[in-house]
This record gives sequence, structure tokens and C-alpha cells, in this order.
Amino acid sequence: MSLLAQIKQKVGAEDVPKLSGHHPLDPLTSIEIGKAVWIVRGEKGQLGYNAVTLHEPKKSEMTAWLAKPADLPKPARQAEVVAIDKDGALWDGIVDIDAGKILTWEKLEGVQPLITMEDLIETDKFVRHDPKVIEQCGILGIPPSDMHKVYADPWTIGYDERFGNKQRLQQALMYYRPNPDDCQYAFPLDFCPIVNTETKEVIHIDIPLVRRPLNKIPSNYNPKDIEADGGYRKDIKPLHVTQPQGVSFSIQGREISWQNFKFHVGFNYKEGIVLNNITVNDKGNERPLFWRLSLAEMVVPYGNPEMWHFRKHAFDLGEYGGGYMTNSLALGCDCLGEIHYLDANFVNRAGDPVTIKNAICIHEEDAGILFKHTDFRDNSVIVTRGRKLIISHIFTAANYEYCVYWIFHQDGTIQLEIKLTGILNTYAMAPDEDTKGWGTQVHPGVNAHNHEHLFCLRIDPQIDGPNNTIFQVDATLGEGEVGSAQNPHGNAFYAKKTKYSTVAEGVADYNGDTSRTWDIANTNKLHPVSGRPVSYKLVSREVPKLLIKPGGLVHKRAGFARHAVHVTKYQDGQIFPAGRHVPQSSGTPSLGLPSWIESTATESIDNEDIVLWHTFGLVHFPAPEDFPVMPAEPMTLLLRPRHFFLRNPVLDVPPSLSIVPSAVGEDGVVKAADGMSKLAFGAEGVNGSGGCCKA
Amino acid sequence: MSLLAQIKQKVGAEDVPKLSGHHPLDPLTSIEIGKAVWIVRGEKGQLGYNAVTLHEPKKSEMTAWLAKPADLPKPARQAEVVAIDKDGALWDGIVDIDAGKILTWEKLEGVQPLITMEDLIETDKFVRHDPKVIEQCGILGIPPSDMHKVYADPWTIGYDERFGNKQRLQQALMYYRPNPDDCQYAFPLDFCPIVNTETKEVIHIDIPLVRRPLNKIPSNYNPKDIEADGGYRKDIKPLHVTQPQGVSFSIQGREISWQNFKFHVGFNYKEGIVLNNITVNDKGNERPLFWRLSLAEMVVPYGNPEMWHFRKHAFDLGEYGGGYMTNSLALGCDCLGEIHYLDANFVNRAGDPVTIKNAICIHEEDAGILFKHTDFRDNSVIVTRGRKLIISHIFTAANYEYCVYWIFHQDGTIQLEIKLTGILNTYAMAPDEDTKGWGTQVHPGVNAHNHEHLFCLRIDPQIDGPNNTIFQVDATLGEGEVGSAQNPHGNAFYAKKTKYSTVAEGVADYNGDTSRTWDIANTNKLHPVSGRPVSYKLVSREVPKLLIKPGGLVHKRAGFARHAVHVTKYQDGQIFPAGRHVPQSSGTPSLGLPSWIESTATESIDNEDIVLWHTFGLVHFPAPEDFPVMPAEPMTLLLRPRHFFLRNPVLDVPPSLSIVPSAVGEDGVVKAADGMSKLAFGAEGVNGSGGCCKA
Repeated sequence: MSLLAQIKQKVGAEDVPKLSGHHPLDPLTSIEIGKAVWIVRGEKGQLGYNAVTLHEPKKSEMTAWLAKPADLPKPARQAEVVAIDKDGALWDGIVDIDAGKILTWEKLEGVQPLITMEDLIETDKFVRHDPKVIEQCGILGIPPSDMHKVYADPWTIGYDERFGNKQRLQQALMYYRPNPDDCQYAFPLDFCPIVNTETKEVIHIDIPLVRRPLNKIPSNYNPKDIEADGGYRKDIKPLHVTQPQGVSFSIQGREISWQNFKFHVGFNYKEGIVLNNITVNDKGNERPLFWRLSLAEMVVPYGNPEMWHFRKHAFDLGEYGGGYMTNSLALGCDCLGEIHYLDANFVNRAGDPVTIKNAICIHEEDAGILFKHTDFRDNSVIVTRGRKLIISHIFTAANYEYCVYWIFHQDGTIQLEIKLTGILNTYAMAPDEDTKGWGTQVHPGVNAHNHEHLFCLRIDPQIDGPNNTIFQVDATLGEGEVGSAQNPHGNAFYAKKTKYSTVAEGVADYNGDTSRTWDIANTNKLHPVSGRPVSYKLVSREVPKLLIKPGGLVHKRAGFARHAVHVTKYQDGQIFPAGRHVPQSSGTPSLGLPSWIESTATESIDNEDIVLWHTFGLVHFPAPEDFPVMPAEPMTLLLRPRHFFLRNPVLDVPPSLSIVPSAVGEDGVVKAADGMSKLAFGAEGVNGSGGCCKA
Repeated sequence: MSLLAQIKQKVGAEDVPKLSGHHPLDPLTSIEIGKAVWIVRGEKGQLGYNAVTLHEPKKSEMTAWLAKPADLPKPARQAEVVAIDKDGALWDGIVDIDAGKILTWEKLEGVQPLITMEDLIETDKFVRHDPKVIEQCGILGIPPSDMHKVYADPWTIGYDERFGNKQRLQQALMYYRPNPDDCQYAFPLDFCPIVNTETKEVIHIDIPLVRRPLNKIPSNYNPKDIEADGGYRKDIKPLHVTQPQGVSFSIQGREISWQNFKFHVGFNYKEGIVLNNITVNDKGNERPLFWRLSLAEMVVPYGNPEMWHFRKHAFDLGEYGGGYMTNSLALGCDCLGEIHYLDANFVNRAGDPVTIKNAICIHEEDAGILFKHTDFRDNSVIVTRGRKLIISHIFTAANYEYCVYWIFHQDGTIQLEIKLTGILNTYAMAPDEDTKGWGTQVHPGVNAHNHEHLFCLRIDPQIDGPNNTIFQVDATLGEGEVGSAQNPHGNAFYAKKTKYSTVAEGVADYNGDTSRTWDIANTNKLHPVSGRPVSYKLVSREVPKLLIKPGGLVHKRAGFARHAVHVTKYQDGQIFPAGRHVPQSSGTPSLGLPSWIESTATESIDNEDIVLWHTFGLVHFPAPEDFPVMPAEPMTLLLRPRHFFLRNPVLDVPPSLSIVPSAVGEDGVVKAADGMSKLAFGAEGVNGSGGCCKA
């Protein structure tokens, strides 16, 4: 029976188009989600669903199957199910979808599952009806009749020792909107209700000793207000990007092929985009690069020590889900050009499948000059333009937006770029109040607190094979003082490489003074010319410290953020560096990375199947320019092939212009033309310009 | 008499179109260059010309004239002339072009003028005819009949105490080309002739004790060899950028207006692009930002302490000239889209004007998402796309290419991006030789040495006025231990600002641990809401140390590179941080910045007319992927407005998509369409996609 026929029988013909080949790492389809819920419901009765997501096959099982897909059975489709019963108890299970049975089913204590969009929206709806909340609004001058203008941005509570983690809690950051289209972040309220997510009750309200009046001045970005404020600028002309012959990538199901790269695009409710089994075709030789790449966690600690602001330290992936919060993207608005979208399927509280249309954007962009050289003797020249492929999604964490771009370059470089935009978290400020340097008044009566964004990039490498080794690389002065025989002019310097041999050794900070990088190397394969291990280099320059003192709550809860780099031995299931269930974790003990490292400190990570965890990000001291909505602030890092390819791997990209020395004179550079670009103010050629050889 | 008529009378009608309004900071036109030479020749007779370039008016004179252009006389057109007489003596003078007379004429001792392209090409031509060079080639197996296949990359000698600085010297790095279209850098020769630039003689040859055989294996990037090596990839489809309504910038002479920015584009033989008097129109108020921005110097020290390699530390701007080495650009090859070019005019040795066509490229690019926010409650959303304006030039320093991009963003940010490409400097390597970590074998028998690229960005600010102050900003933990009343959870952190009060204080290194930035502030103007001084923030993350020991030659000669930041009080003529004439400077004393700082150490830089000098760059440990030509490696830094604008200054950029809460439901996000982008694989809409509101 054909694979297609089997799939039809199992999950229903109507689902086949969506399955598109059904790779074992494909996210669950809505049919599969529905079937998993149906299986659980059969045995466990009515439950609230927090997550139904792909339970990824064991790495060993996957790699074995990928090696012999025809001979071995395809890894089974399994679902991880997180459910909450009517008593608020948390259940964690694994369901075999094909076999139709529950494999594991476990009750969890002392942790809480993430807060879903539904949970947030529910709180926003009910909190304004609470009498004590109405009372507090009254104190700030909002009459009961205006309570429909009061909104809550519910956040996970972080951890508050007064309430512990037995109940499933949120802290509701309160705002006011005089008019429905106003930006509410210009009208923060100064009190903070704590709500029970399950019972939908306000269990407590934190109220400042000194009250802060409600600001009355709006700051808006909606078209009506912009028109009133002088209108839109009219001097920006349209810019179009077209690909008359179509795009350069192809996609089979969720497997993408582009410019010698091949990889699978996964997606889940926590991490969002997951890139699986990235390989590069090196002149016919399919070489593995990374088994799995994802943003696995992040934390955004705020730096104001006053009152309850310490609770503002969102783990946006582990506590809310970067996948759950993903935007449905619109053509030309989020990315420009010729775009392929992938949808995302999730479960809702009731157990029904829901879909985010256009969750993932896949498109190409011009990448500027890929390489160029001119010979000064004769002006013989080669110029080759680069292209990049971008896999992106954007998620909205209440006020903030995170735009995540996984960028593939033709030279083998993989870049992660993140753009921060959206709106600052704000708090009320009294007219005579001093920010004390913990924040900035970005609008009258509006205080935006200092914070940092720390992301944890999970790199599961397979550089030319499953076993890799991490080397710390520091630019270091050579020995010998100025005037000495070995260093007469003091100019000796080299790349000092420090191998991380054990898990305990594989914990390190960034060092800007030595331009520190990290090599992910395969010491079993030496470059035929340089003699160095084949490797990919992690180049990351935005690596702030975790600005929390040891013993502080966030220091305890966000163990992954204490250092720029951690290295662990690969273990199935170790995906989330702050723990699988993050909300209301006390930090005692520290979940995730710290516990894994402690329990394996002496284990070898030298020439083993390892995982490299990299924490990077930026510190944000708000300024008025960031309000009422922030111009996007980008940050980036690179994974670059070093000693991996025999030589420059993009020499075979067709040049835009190539004039070899023996051809100089016949045709000059200035006459060349690509017949595509043109002079801004016409008069082609008049300016001595022209284009190039691809006409 | 009208300005135009005056110009006609002075410099001849045929030149008027080129003068295009004749801004006092416009580079000299070819007519002006010719006139300056004619004036000097009249008084001084036959000379060799090294440079004839604009002598920029005094800042005080310029600012006075700009304030009252109608009432005050326009600053006179003056030329700086650097000439060499037949005895090899160096002359430095200033000529008043309009008045037709020499203002100053000075003989210089103990320094040498930069090496021009002509000087390089002359050496490449004559060195292969020297009997001793022919002899050395013979030893390496190159017969006299093959000497036409021998090439020299002449470099400035740096400083070699054996030869001092009385004669004008070059070191000729030698290569071989079996075939004219071969990449010579795969065939380095192991000896190094020292030549006298003026007498065109080889005065010495440095020969290694252990000879290194000539490599026989080519590594090429020319089309013929790529075709033979498997041919060009055929799977990259064209990508077109078009602007059907034209570009969004306008240009008057060399003054550019774009998206509220206005600035003048200068250009000279050393720095290349110079951006003058950058202002921003803030809702009708023309606010000054920067009086002058340029790359003023750079140095590329190599890290191999053996033999004469210490001499490889090119000051590419001060010793060769980033302007002189500028490429003539080709449409679509160097930049994509609708482009405006500016030419560059220089003098040649004989005193004749020469022109580089299309030296400067001016074009726009899409900049991705400028800002976005979605309300999780109702999916109301705004997405606005950004645009950037790029002023660029590319210069070729022998083997290397530097692509310099000055990028203006709509939010007021000015970005400098530099892409390194071109070819590694290479040296011969014996089969059994150990690189000792000072370099990498990138091709059999070819050793590419470690090096770093250190650029000096000269920032002459005028943030909201002529007097500014520099603050060092460090992300710093707040006081109070965990559990203390003022910092109970240890999460307090703030932006520690350290004012540089005197020149001596204004010398600092980078600190990655504190995410150090620098504020260029106007302490006379406080932001009306935040109460902080209006400022622009220097955000630069690629700031390696100068990898030379104190007392080492490069440490002495490249004083500007010892620290990330220097601040000086503005003084006319202080442009070049390694000195006005760099070649063969001994470093004793250190020219430029160190001498200026020493002589003004106690002077105030607090609320004064100051200059901020920033050294940044990267360390390059070569890998085989960089050969035979390097995939472009980018680095970047930002100048960002902070507390400068009342609020987000790009709210008035027309959004791609805007759906306010009160409009949600009538029309959903997924139905929006900009009518420009499309689905990669057709089926518009099928995928639940659409576009947005600007259709």
C-alpha cells in the first residue's frame, strides 16, 4: 500500500493536501490535533487544553530513518498534550496518534503551564468587572460608566512568594483608552490586580502608597490622528521588487531547497520556527550542518526595583509561546516581493484545532555585493551580487513585537536577525516624580522602564557529522616583548583556541576585548589545505550581561541568561533552557540548563553529540523616540563556514560584471549594462555610466 | 552681477554645468584643478603633482556664510597642493583659485606624501626589469623570458629604520601569473624588493634565509575556469527593483534632500565621501546634526612577526587615498535600482585633471519593517515599511576591496556599513612550513596572514547647535544587595553616564560587558518630556583592540587606533588622525591625534565645539573560504537619535497596512493587499493571504 494511501486511511483524504509528504518533523496538522484530542477525551473525559503539539521523534530514530527511509518504518506521529482539569490540576502526556492510544500521562506539581492568548483575552474581559478594580479606577477618576474603556495587558506573574505556584496566576497591567482607537500605553493605571486564570477571579490588587494620576494626553499612531497632526509625508515613492522568472527556492511539503541548502521548516507553539536537518550540497556531496536551530527561550527583565516591577520579566517563549503569539502576515506589508507562506495549526482550550494563516513567510532578497575585485593595473573586474533567503515570523507579546528572520546566504552563512518593534511597556508617573534613572518619561505621566531582551539560541550542530567540539577563539597578542627576537615590532597576534572538554568547562561569557567567537568544529575532519578542523563559527557581538544580581529572582529563574555560552551533551527532550513549564517557577531549583549542567558537569563534550546554547540580546534604555510605537531596532548574529569549504563556495554564482585582463580594452567597465537598473534622473549613459554584462 | 555670471567670468562658462551652484564645499572641478596647477606652474615651474584638492574653508567662515548667504561673501575657492620637485623635495601649499595666487608654500622634511595609483603602476612596470629581481625570479624557477608574467603589488614601506624617510619608498610584494587571467595571489614570490619611487630604482631586496618554492596550482575566479570547474549555477532567478514614480530624493548640485534630511556630499582623494552639514527638518524646524562625517583614516596591521611582514600595516586612506583608489561603478552591478552617480576629479602627476566616472552611488533601498504593532485583543494592526538612502563608494587597495555605505534611515538614524571583499594578501609557504598560527594556508603553498582592519570614523557633531558634550554610557547594576530595601530582588539597573570634561578624559576603550555606548549630547537643550539632553547615540559593537604591543611600530604610528574613542576640541585642519602626510612616518613622535591630545590635554570638551574620533573594525583570521576572492564580510555602526525628537519621528510615513480597532471586522488583515507583492507559487488568496490597504 502506497504511503499516500496509508495516510488517507489514517487521517482522512481531506487532510492529505495539508500533509504534503508528511515529514516526521512536520507540525501536527489540524486533523492530527483533532485526533489526539479525541483520543485523550476518550480516556480522560472533559479537559481544558493548553497545548497539543508534535512530540518530536528521538534523534537516533530520526537519523536512522533518514539514512534508510525505504527500509525502516517512518517514526510514529506522536503528540505532546498539556491539559488542565476542572480542579486546575496540570496533566502532561504523550499520545500515539496512529496507534490511537495514550503512551504517558503524568500529573505535574509545583509548576504551571504557559498562559495562552485565550487566557490573556479572558482576563482582559473579566477584570474590568471586578468591584475592587472598579473602585480603584474610580480613585483615578474613571467612573463606573467608563469601565468599558479600561483594558488589561495580562502578564504571567513571574513568581511572587506571596502566592506561590499552586494557583494559575496572571498579573494584569492596567490601561485606559478614552477612545477605542487610542494607544492605551499612553494611559497606564498605577495599580495591578492579580488574577486566578482558572477561576477568573481577582485574588489581590497591588496598590502603590503614593498614587499616580491618570494621564490625559493621548499619543497616537492611528491615521486619523496622524492626519490631524499634519498628515502623512507625500515624498516617499513606491519601490517594487519583482522576480519575472519566479523565485529561486523550491519547497516539497516543508522541505526547502535553495542555493545548495536543504532544510525542513518546523514550527511549534513555544519556539515558533524550528529549522531541522540543515544540509549543504558541496559539489554533489550532501554535508550536514545543523540538526536543529531555534530560538528556545528568552527573558525580558525590567530594571526598576520599586514595588512589584520585579515581576516584569517575561519569558515570552516559555511563558506565552512565540508560536501562539505569531501574527498572520499580509503580502507586501511584512515582507516585499514574491512570498510563500506556511500556516500554523494549534489547539484551543476547548480542544478544537485553530489555524494562524500565513504564520511563516519565505522569500528572497537581494543581498548586495557578494564579492568584488578590480585589478588596479588594468581595471579588469569581477562583481557578483548576492541573494538571501529569509524564513521569518513575527510575534506579538502584548505590547512588544518581535520579528524573527532566519537568513540563508549563498556563501553558507546562516544569519539570525531579530527586529524589536511594537510598544514599550509603560507605567504611570506622577508630575513631580523622579524616575531615579530606572526609567524614562517618554510621554507626560508615562514612565517606560529600563529592560533588556535576552534570547537563547539553541544550536544543535552536526558539522560534517553528529560529533562536534566547541572551541573558544580569542584574538591574542603573541609572546615576546617589543625588541625581542621572536616579536621585534610587537605585531604578533594569533587566534587562541580553547577547547571545552567537559560540560563544566563549556560555560563562558563574551569578551569584546578579544573579539571572542566560538568555533563549532568537527575534529574528525581536517580541511585538506588549512589542516584545521572543518567548522562553523558563531559570530555574535550583541551579548549583554544579565543585569540581575546573583540570588535575584530572575538570576535564579533564567539560568540560561547567566552566561553567553553553555554547552551540553545532546539529550532527547532537552529543548527549553528555563524548563518545560516556566510560569511561576520559583527558581529554586533553577530549571533547565543549570540543572542539566550540574548533573552532567564531568561528562565529555569533546567530539560528542552536543548542543550549544547562546544567549544574546540588547539593553534598552527607553527614549521618547520609542513612543508611542518603536522604530524597529535590529540585532543580528552569524554562523559562518570556516575551514569547511575547499575554497570560496560562491565563485559559481553568475557575476553581474566580469572583464578579465585579457579582455580589457575591447569593452570597458563603464559601458557594461545589466539592462535592469537605471539612472535616477534619466540620461542613460550621459553620466558616463552604463551597466553590465548580463544584458 | 549674479552669482552665475560671476562664476562664468571666473572659471569659464563651459565649467558652469559641472559647478552646479558651486557650494563652497564642492570638490574642485577639473577646471579649478587645472587653474590651480596653472597658477603654481607660473610661479614654481615644472613639478610633479601628488594632490590638488579643495582646501576647505574655515568652519567659522562657512557657518557665518551659511547663516547669511545673501549678505556675506561666499568663502573663496582654495586648493591644497602637494607637489614633488625633481630633487624629490616635498612641497605643501595653498592656492587661491579665484585670486589666482599662491597663499602658502612650504617645504616639508621627514615625511613623504602618499603613494598614488600612478606610483603603484610605475613600480609594477619597472621592477620586473631589474637584474636582481630577474635573478631572484630565476632562483624560483621563473626564466628571464617569463618576466612579463611577474607582477608587483607595491605597498608603502610603512617605516623601515634601515631606510628612514629621506627617500620616497615602496615595498614591492611580488607575484607571478602563469596566464594573464590567473589570480596572481595564488602565486606569491618569497622576496621583497624595496624601490625608490622617484628614481624608479630597486635599492634593496629582502630575501628569506629559507626559500619558499613557487606554487604551481592556480585558483581562479575567471569565467573560463569556473566553466571548466563545473560551470555557473543556473538556479538563481533574476530579482528586479523598480521605482515607477522615480526616486524619493532630490539633488541640487551636491546637496541632497531626502525624508527630512539635508546634507552635502563632498569627496576628496584621501577620505573619499565626506558628508557635510547634515540637518534634519523636524516639523518645519531645520535642526543641525553633524557638521562633517567621514572615514578619516584606517590601518591594517598584519600579525606575522617574522621577517619583514611587520611592514605590512597599510594606512589605506592616509598612505594611498580612499578617493584615489575609488572604483568607477557600473549600473546594477554595484548597486541595484534607480541610481544617481557623482564623478570625482583629481590631478595626475603631470598636473592634468583626471576624472573617475560614477565614483559615488546614490540610491534607495527598502528597509523592511519600520514599525509594527498588532493588538492581541482584536488583531487591529499597523505595519509601516521603511526606506533607506545609501551614499556609497568602493575603493580597491591593491588586493582588498572596501565598500563604504553611508545609510540614512527615516527615523533619523545614520548608519555606516563597510563591506570587506577582494583578495587576501598572500605570502609564499614551503610544503613543510608551519604557519605557527600567524596565518592560514588558504591554498597549497599560499599563506594568508592574520590581520585586523581598524577604521577611524571622524564625527564632527552639531547636535542642535555647535557645542556638544560626550557622555560614556554603561549599563550598570543598581546599588543594594538582594534582599535590601532598595533592591529586594536584585533587578535594579540603570544607564550610568560619565561625562568627558577634558581632552585627557575623552580617551576610552570599548566595554562589551556594559554594552557601552556614547551619547553626543547638547546639554543646552533638554528634551521637553524626558528632561534629558538632546543627543545622538553612537552604537558600535565591532571594536577590537589594536593588537600591537605598546612601543611597537604600528602602536606608535597609528595612535588613533590605541583606543575606541578620542575626543578633541575642534580645530580647523585637524582631519587626519595619523597625520597629514603618513607614509614613512616613524611614529616618533606619533602624528595626529596623540600630539593634538597631548597639547590640549587640559582643555575643556564640555559644551564645546568638539570632534569625536571612533576606531572600530574587525580581526581577520583567514580561512580557505576567503580565497581566491573573499565573500563580502560586513560590519556596521549606528548614530541614533535619543531624546532628540519629541516622539517617534516616522509616524507620518504612510503605513502599508493600518486597521484601527474601530474598523476591525469590516475588513480583516488577511484581506488587505498592496497589489505589489505576490505569492511565490501563485494562487493569490488561496493560501489565506492577501495584501494590504494601499492598493
